[in-house]
Amino acid sequence: MDEDENTVFIGSKETMNYVMAIMEQFNRGSDEVVIKARGRAISKAVDVAEITKNRFLETADITDIMTETEELEDEGGGSTNVSSIEITMKNKA
Amino acid sequence: MDEDENTVFIGSKETMNYVMAIMEQFNRGSDEVVIKARGRAISKAVDVAEITKNRFLETADITDIMTETEELEDEGGGSTNVSSIEITMKNKA
Repeated sequence: MDEDENTVFIGSKETMNYVMAIMEQFNRGSDEVVIKARGRAISKAVDVAEITKNRFLETADITDIMTETEELEDEGGGSTNVSSIEITMKNKA
Repeated sequence: MDEDENTVFIGSKETMNYVMAIMEQFNRGSDEVVIKARGRAISKAVDVAEITKNRFLETADITDIMTETEELEDEGGGSTNVSSIEITMKNKA
């Protein structure tokens, strides 16, 4: 995952924090924001995208959703697979 | 959500149960299986799709992912919004 400034990473904060982060990006003039999440945060990423377009920015839409399997190294030197999602939102305004 | 026989609904069972349900559909000759989930089960739905294509059926791929907000009635007569996902997998074999 890259550290693009138009990217919002979903972690353990409240859902609305991420909605606000996306709104800030759009208000700053970005026409595209990418939401990234791994593992259990994937459900929250979908909530964030849905809430943003339904309640805050009706001119925004989800234009692409991609999933992937990432291999993470665990503490014992082995690796664990974790699913990730990338939701692209565009503001058509 | 409809009750199409090519649809696998993700609930509270173990992830591998749903992977097996999808494999059964493909083995029965379906060339398309739709995975549906709501709320916290969304993360599991992504795991199920990723595990199916990476570990069990390399000729299968995710061809479409859609999200939605559903309005569910709660016990008090009010309603709650819940996000849902629909992942379409196709077997190209």
